[in-house]
Amino acid sequence: MMEEDMENGRSYQERPRTFSTVRSKSSIPLVFRLLMRINPRALIILSLLVFSGVLYVGASTSPIVVFVFCICTLSLFFSLYLTKWVLTKDEGPPEMSEISDAIRDGAEGFFRTQYGTISKMACILAFVILGIYLFRTSTPQQEASGLGRATSAYITVASFLLGALCSGIAGFVGMWVSVRANVRVSSAARRSAREALQIAVRAGGFSAIVVVCMAVFGVAILYSTFYVWLGVDSPGSMKVTDLPLLLVGYGFGASFVALFAQLGGGIYTKAADVGADLVGKVEQGIPEDDPRNPAVIADLVGDNVGDCAARGADLFESIAAEIISAMILGGTMAQRCKIEDPSGFILFPLVVHSFDLVVSSVGILSIRGTRDSGLVSPIEDPMAIMQKGYSVTIMLAVLTFGVSTRWLLYTEQAPSAWLNFAMCGLVGIITAYAFVWISKYYTDYKHEPVRLLALSSSTGHGTNIIAGVSLGMESTALPVLVISVAIISAYWLGQTSGLVDESGDPTGGLFGTAVATMGMLSTAGYVLTMDMFGPIADNAGGIVEMSQQPESVREITDVLDAVGNTTKATTKGFAIGSAALASFLLFSAYMDEVASFSQLPFKEVDIAVPEIFVGGLLGSMLIFLFSAWACSAVGKTAQEVVNEVRRQFIERPGIMDYKEKPDYGRCVAIVASASLREMIRPGALAIISPMAVGVIFRILGHSTGQPLLGAKVVASMLMFATVAGILMALFLNTAGGAWDNAKKYIETGALGGKGSESHKAAVTGDTVGDPFKDTAGPSLHVLIKMLATITLVMAPIFL
Amino acid sequence: MMEEDMENGRSYQERPRTFSTVRSKSSIPLVFRLLMRINPRALIILSLLVFSGVLYVGASTSPIVVFVFCICTLSLFFSLYLTKWVLTKDEGPPEMSEISDAIRDGAEGFFRTQYGTISKMACILAFVILGIYLFRTSTPQQEASGLGRATSAYITVASFLLGALCSGIAGFVGMWVSVRANVRVSSAARRSAREALQIAVRAGGFSAIVVVCMAVFGVAILYSTFYVWLGVDSPGSMKVTDLPLLLVGYGFGASFVALFAQLGGGIYTKAADVGADLVGKVEQGIPEDDPRNPAVIADLVGDNVGDCAARGADLFESIAAEIISAMILGGTMAQRCKIEDPSGFILFPLVVHSFDLVVSSVGILSIRGTRDSGLVSPIEDPMAIMQKGYSVTIMLAVLTFGVSTRWLLYTEQAPSAWLNFAMCGLVGIITAYAFVWISKYYTDYKHEPVRLLALSSSTGHGTNIIAGVSLGMESTALPVLVISVAIISAYWLGQTSGLVDESGDPTGGLFGTAVATMGMLSTAGYVLTMDMFGPIADNAGGIVEMSQQPESVREITDVLDAVGNTTKATTKGFAIGSAALASFLLFSAYMDEVASFSQLPFKEVDIAVPEIFVGGLLGSMLIFLFSAWACSAVGKTAQEVVNEVRRQFIERPGIMDYKEKPDYGRCVAIVASASLREMIRPGALAIISPMAVGVIFRILGHSTGQPLLGAKVVASMLMFATVAGILMALFLNTAGGAWDNAKKYIETGALGGKGSESHKAAVTGDTVGDPFKDTAGPSLHVLIKMLATITLVMAPIFL
Repeated sequence: MMEEDMENGRSYQERPRTFSTVRSKSSIPLVFRLLMRINPRALIILSLLVFSGVLYVGASTSPIVVFVFCICTLSLFFSLYLTKWVLTKDEGPPEMSEISDAIRDGAEGFFRTQYGTISKMACILAFVILGIYLFRTSTPQQEASGLGRATSAYITVASFLLGALCSGIAGFVGMWVSVRANVRVSSAARRSAREALQIAVRAGGFSAIVVVCMAVFGVAILYSTFYVWLGVDSPGSMKVTDLPLLLVGYGFGASFVALFAQLGGGIYTKAADVGADLVGKVEQGIPEDDPRNPAVIADLVGDNVGDCAARGADLFESIAAEIISAMILGGTMAQRCKIEDPSGFILFPLVVHSFDLVVSSVGILSIRGTRDSGLVSPIEDPMAIMQKGYSVTIMLAVLTFGVSTRWLLYTEQAPSAWLNFAMCGLVGIITAYAFVWISKYYTDYKHEPVRLLALSSSTGHGTNIIAGVSLGMESTALPVLVISVAIISAYWLGQTSGLVDESGDPTGGLFGTAVATMGMLSTAGYVLTMDMFGPIADNAGGIVEMSQQPESVREITDVLDAVGNTTKATTKGFAIGSAALASFLLFSAYMDEVASFSQLPFKEVDIAVPEIFVGGLLGSMLIFLFSAWACSAVGKTAQEVVNEVRRQFIERPGIMDYKEKPDYGRCVAIVASASLREMIRPGALAIISPMAVGVIFRILGHSTGQPLLGAKVVASMLMFATVAGILMALFLNTAGGAWDNAKKYIETGALGGKGSESHKAAVTGDTVGDPFKDTAGPSLHVLIKMLATITLVMAPIFL
Repeated sequence: MMEEDMENGRSYQERPRTFSTVRSKSSIPLVFRLLMRINPRALIILSLLVFSGVLYVGASTSPIVVFVFCICTLSLFFSLYLTKWVLTKDEGPPEMSEISDAIRDGAEGFFRTQYGTISKMACILAFVILGIYLFRTSTPQQEASGLGRATSAYITVASFLLGALCSGIAGFVGMWVSVRANVRVSSAARRSAREALQIAVRAGGFSAIVVVCMAVFGVAILYSTFYVWLGVDSPGSMKVTDLPLLLVGYGFGASFVALFAQLGGGIYTKAADVGADLVGKVEQGIPEDDPRNPAVIADLVGDNVGDCAARGADLFESIAAEIISAMILGGTMAQRCKIEDPSGFILFPLVVHSFDLVVSSVGILSIRGTRDSGLVSPIEDPMAIMQKGYSVTIMLAVLTFGVSTRWLLYTEQAPSAWLNFAMCGLVGIITAYAFVWISKYYTDYKHEPVRLLALSSSTGHGTNIIAGVSLGMESTALPVLVISVAIISAYWLGQTSGLVDESGDPTGGLFGTAVATMGMLSTAGYVLTMDMFGPIADNAGGIVEMSQQPESVREITDVLDAVGNTTKATTKGFAIGSAALASFLLFSAYMDEVASFSQLPFKEVDIAVPEIFVGGLLGSMLIFLFSAWACSAVGKTAQEVVNEVRRQFIERPGIMDYKEKPDYGRCVAIVASASLREMIRPGALAIISPMAVGVIFRILGHSTGQPLLGAKVVASMLMFATVAGILMALFLNTAGGAWDNAKKYIETGALGGKGSESHKAAVTGDTVGDPFKDTAGPSLHVLIKMLATITLVMAPIFL
């Protein structure tokens, strides 16, 4: 179907190359193709060999690593079970699978081109890093510990590339399953709401488990490999407490890929959505996902590349960055307190996330199909079912978190320290809960804010936008208060844990904050499942609408879609909260790193110094400029879509009467090429500006006798950017979500219902909110963490 | 006319009391009424006596103060000449003066009620300050220097009240002249464009001169009074270098009143404007300022109370705060460098602003009427005329700035220091120019950004809003770069000036930044004139439209109005730039103040400490929450106006055919009462939150052994709030201005012109931009400076 369209459209203007040239290739990435060429039995033997090798390396490092490896392996098998379960479901009638095929082709084509571009950029950056590390100055101690310039350069580059690769795989897995699950969910919706829900949850669960698994597995393998390779803790070589610092390249690689994945995917999905809505809904008055809209396939493709692939990479990066920063802080603290066996403190995050895999799997399995329970009404509240699963997961997480702290953080120097750290974990879990609740309050139309927003639509487009902007800005207050209380109380719990350094000063404060962050992320698997559920349900709804199924089927997918919107909004709150905490940790790690590189004390970042204040100004400005470019990318691309859709409606008048088929492929091609083009500018800004600022102020500092000026200005830039980024992301996400749901509220029949003037104003709000909540907002989550990791990795050039 | 309407409307719902009860009173404030009761000759003799007393006190302080007094007095006479010149112009035909009377009644009524509320709050706050200062701990040295607790309490409270009073007078003067000049401009527009321009400029010039004069005079009188009263520099009493710290109360009083004036006025003007546009322009399709629109008088009243009165208070506060902070820094530096006669460094800002008065007067006079020049085309470009005046002013300012630095900042310890400081001044003047140019680039439709914004309107309301938000966020980048370069280069020029402290360290850096700020503000008088010009021209246009004058008259006022929009937008850039610099200075003053109060070293604000980081988070959040509440206040009030206007159109169908008169008074009453109600919440937030944060963290700090924690957290809150506030204000101002002009661009006939779908989308953008650029944005300027002064005055409770 699409190939034909592509041919027809070729005469029109310049044809973007990204789509047409790509389609001829197979849709499986090179790695998988190579693996598939091998004989299956040989593959199994090979895997077993690799696994035993890994296990051997792990066993030489620590029994804790072996534990982590085993859990990860089991989880991978569990995810295989989930995907097999999903794939055995039927694909429905041909009209459904035809649409699904078009979506899959579009998504896989875009994914390949996008990741092709990203991987080229990653390779260039790898060379830059290699150069920086090969030519940096290193201290005699560093050389003596066996970690010379060359070794550390190769280690950093290798970690960077591995991180980038794993992040890419995380994105691919997320998209791979969603383009296959969507049609199965639509098909199941013809039979039972419960079954449809179960398929969507299990498909989301598959990619969630794989993402968490890869983050944990990747870090654990790198850690133990370096441990064995460098002969850590043997006399004359490096100490185990310094080892985690070598892993930062992995975090940077992950966040680098995640940034571009989120930007490209985010621009794609929202440009298509906004373009489709502006002409379809507003001008022509046809429903969402109507097959007559030429941009509808592009919109559905967008859900997969924007929400599934990008969010997979985003969460992968969150978990990896947070594990690494917590390991660094654990190592630093263990060293300061002279703890005899520091491996417990260092490996703690890996164990927490291993348990995360277990409890999330239980949570996913707790959502069962109809076959087991007896009588089920045709449409239950799926939100209640999902929340029950979340409650199960959280309760188990509290338990396992307590077990982990007792197991790994018990030390005879401070026998009750583990209890304090368990409390820190509880602080984190409560913070996660609070964030989810607050975003729900501000974006769910059961509560006052969205109702008032809907009411403001009744006086026009203008008042709707003003009210939405105010709502979004106001919604930053409570999360900031919660995160403030969380940081201070976790820090205080850590300080009073009884762990003291040589001079008797309490020193566990920062590690306490790290443990709280882990507490917050201790149910990441389940949260990611809920998040992935959204776009799958959305896609399923689209397929049902496009294949013109009966109203009852559409009702089921509508309910699932609405639930998906809520879970998506709430998991964004979760993501930004954890980004805030993780960034604060990485900031401390950065100061340690700079101090150890430069052999100079780096204890404070004093914003009363003009240059450092200026760094803060520039950091905050970076957030505004980045958001501007992300939003305007969507706006510009959407304008192209609008013009194309309008053109098709004019040139093919038969479309509206179902007599002619719209040219879906043109819209897909326009969006794909534009979003690849538009993702470069904000992405490059994020990568280059901290490096440029660091180098400029380094030169300025050296010429005015302030040796650490570059590093300090970058630190201040990072902190101000983090704060501004958190607030901006909260604003964008909440405003977007609230506008979306205000429109949905009016569509339930309130204030005149569909087609009324209020509804039109609400649709405008929804359109504005789209790039806010799905492009700029999530990109900011990634940006915050990327800034923290890039400064860590690039620290040598600031000195 | 309005009285009748008021009576008719009384039956409808609850009548807000603010308007009706107030109208019966005379429209002249108590101070003026008392003065008027005195015999004119006695008044002259009294004034002469007061003046000689003031002059005597000044002469006992320093000859420089006498110079300042003389210039200020001459300027006051000049402003009397200007106002007399304006008032001798005719008020036009009765239909014009009828409308003008309605506007004046509305504006003066609102002003009285608003300032009544504000003065009550100021009195309460004065008691709070008195209590804090009476019960704070003071050191033996402080007691010994003759400045006991009681004295310092009374001094602070007296300065606070005087600052508040002067700020109120500044606002009153701005409004007083604009409600009288508007009709004279409309009347003159029937004769000649040039004459209309001249009246508007001179009326604006009158209030600008009075505002600058009062700021300079007020500070100078306080300074010399305290100097004589406390016997400064005589043995055993306080040093002259500590004197400026006593003046901070004046700055706080000014910013306190300015904050509420800007909030109340800003909400008033934009709620009326948005409400009038949403129904009038969008729904009914009648032009702006059409007499059939029931909200049109409220809209015109809003220009006076929002733009004239509030901007007068805003700039008054800017100048006062900047003078005081520069005096503090000058004193501190003079003391550190052991300069023999520090009075030059302390009094420098007063002299700079005295020269400002002179050069601005010359600039105002350089805009001459038609009578002098021979042939003048009926419509010249008024922008070119105003910019010629600005060039004259700036060139003179560069000259007089050089003279001032040579006169006052020459010291034998560092003979070339004055030259460095003159360069700092030049940096400031260039910064001001750059800011004006950048805001012009982003908001003028001659340039690309606004054209692209207009183009995005052609694809709908949604893309217009997305593009406007992106444009606003992007526009923060260049100003931040400029201000960064300005801070660093001025600091560097100051450091290398050759002034060193006892231990030989260079120490002039911060004072260099202060001098740059003064350079930036050295043409404040003329800039304020251009700013005041805008609303007067806007009002004149309204009166011409409402009194149904011929098209040619309307054309003249339209041109003036458009120029006013541009000057308003550019002076906002100027205001935010100077706020940024002034705030950075006040921050240093705050650190000095805390150190001297607590007798503890307060050298750095280290954001790596969790509590201080949290302070930064809270500070940034304050900006978002404040902006949210300011915008939502406009949105809510506008909704009330929309409902009222819709009701009138339905209940009085004759309005549209000019058969029935709309009830203007109802709309005025609704807006007045709502804006007074809505200004309290954001205002209270701004006042209470820094105090609350300071006290909470003070308690936390005392219980964990960190004595300065409260003060440091407040410092970080202040810095982060400043940075976030600058960015947010830039975003809001520029986005608002750009939307406004994108609409104007379409109205020139581009993209379909008036009435097209693009125009409708552009009107939505303009509506959204209204509260951005005229309520939240300008309120943020004031908020930033208010935060800096409140922390200074409230410092005792953080310790």
